[in-house]
Amino acid sequence: MKKYKFCFIGAGNVATHLSTELQKCGHEVVQVYSRSEESAKQLADRLNTDFTISTKSIIQTADIYIVALKDSVVDQVLSQTEFNDKLLVHCSGSMPMNVLSKYTKNYGVFYPLQTFSKKRDVDFKTIPIFVEANSDNNQLKLEELANEISNSVTVLDSEKRKSLHIAAVFACNFTNHCYAMAAKYLESKELPFDILRPLIAETANKVQHLHPKEAQTGPAIRFDENIINAHLEDLKEMPDLQELYNSISKSIFEYHQEKK
Amino acid sequence: MKKYKFCFIGAGNVATHLSTELQKCGHEVVQVYSRSEESAKQLADRLNTDFTISTKSIIQTADIYIVALKDSVVDQVLSQTEFNDKLLVHCSGSMPMNVLSKYTKNYGVFYPLQTFSKKRDVDFKTIPIFVEANSDNNQLKLEELANEISNSVTVLDSEKRKSLHIAAVFACNFTNHCYAMAAKYLESKELPFDILRPLIAETANKVQHLHPKEAQTGPAIRFDENIINAHLEDLKEMPDLQELYNSISKSIFEYHQEKK
Repeated sequence: MKKYKFCFIGAGNVATHLSTELQKCGHEVVQVYSRSEESAKQLADRLNTDFTISTKSIIQTADIYIVALKDSVVDQVLSQTEFNDKLLVHCSGSMPMNVLSKYTKNYGVFYPLQTFSKKRDVDFKTIPIFVEANSDNNQLKLEELANEISNSVTVLDSEKRKSLHIAAVFACNFTNHCYAMAAKYLESKELPFDILRPLIAETANKVQHLHPKEAQTGPAIRFDENIINAHLEDLKEMPDLQELYNSISKSIFEYHQEKK
Repeated sequence: MKKYKFCFIGAGNVATHLSTELQKCGHEVVQVYSRSEESAKQLADRLNTDFTISTKSIIQTADIYIVALKDSVVDQVLSQTEFNDKLLVHCSGSMPMNVLSKYTKNYGVFYPLQTFSKKRDVDFKTIPIFVEANSDNNQLKLEELANEISNSVTVLDSEKRKSLHIAAVFACNFTNHCYAMAAKYLESKELPFDILRPLIAETANKVQHLHPKEAQTGPAIRFDENIINAHLEDLKEMPDLQELYNSISKSIFEYHQEKK
């Protein structure tokens, strides 16, 4: 397998895990750029490579540039950089591939569908990776790269990738917020978050096999008004939780009334 | 360990799993009551025991009666039955223990904190069980029973148990609904739910170690308006999802603005 020289533009959660994994597979990360010196240095140290916080100093000699920035700053950063028609790839769920077309003739997307935190290692083999590119040749290159690190690689266009990202926001970010609200409530009652961990694990395990519609339990699906009203009453001192409780309970009930 | 004769009042998810587990430990389930003949028969067959759908025919000779009914029908069912001061125990997170005081001199609560579905086996050893009783003697009996089937047994009063139940609704029922909404959205785009499963598993695994506040990722925590507005626009044909997306995103952002 051909080994490439990578430049990482961005040093956040995705950049940290993806660059580490590519390096493990024998590729070289020649530079890390970040707007934050702390992040740039931290990732460069981890990879034992150079870093810069100036877009003017982004290296010219990489084979592939991986953009793992917050969507809203991508344009601002890339417009200050020369790519000499090298392969430029972003990792965003939501941005269309074509946002890169003004910077180079060779571009694509490399989207790993996972929640990354710097503190936590992940097994890339199990992470679905979705790729897209502006030419067959670039697509093949990205597919080969993705297959080196993951067992699940799919070519997906920008429109479908955006849909996938929306679903991922529900399944991951919103789910995690439900955990956070549970934790906040328990803490207000001086009960430890620990006691919910087996329940959280089983809730996720169930839908590894069942469809979530089959897996649902609890008062909202039965629309058990006694319980729901008692819970809403108990939550009156935490109006943020009360509002969420109310809207999600209604949504559960309505969803389970829909035709199968 | 003393072996008891149990009568199960209720034949739903909790009754099914708890009765099966107690039988495995050598206790005897002498009868199952349910308002639904189908459920009563199904559980009685599984346990190879008798069933009834008439409250008048609830057996007089059990040592312990376990009530695993929807809260709203408990009174209606129990008021038609004689318990002769036997130990009467309910499994509800939300009902205070004292609702049982008018039926017998011996009563308590046995609350396993887990999401049960008939189709899916669970490992009781890992399930936290919370007990409460009206006397030391009854409490000891319930603690011993709980310790037979679980490694995590805690005595907890009705008020704290209700708080725990509210937190569990967030961590389990609302979480599962986030999975369901993700599935619904993907299905509308002809994408398979399967591709979210590794993400769902990792989202739950992360909080086995991290606090959910540390584990959060995604556009809402950054309040990345480009992405959030594009997502809301995409969801306009599914107003139920759009509304949830909006309210949960706001809640995430506000929560992460709160003082640590």
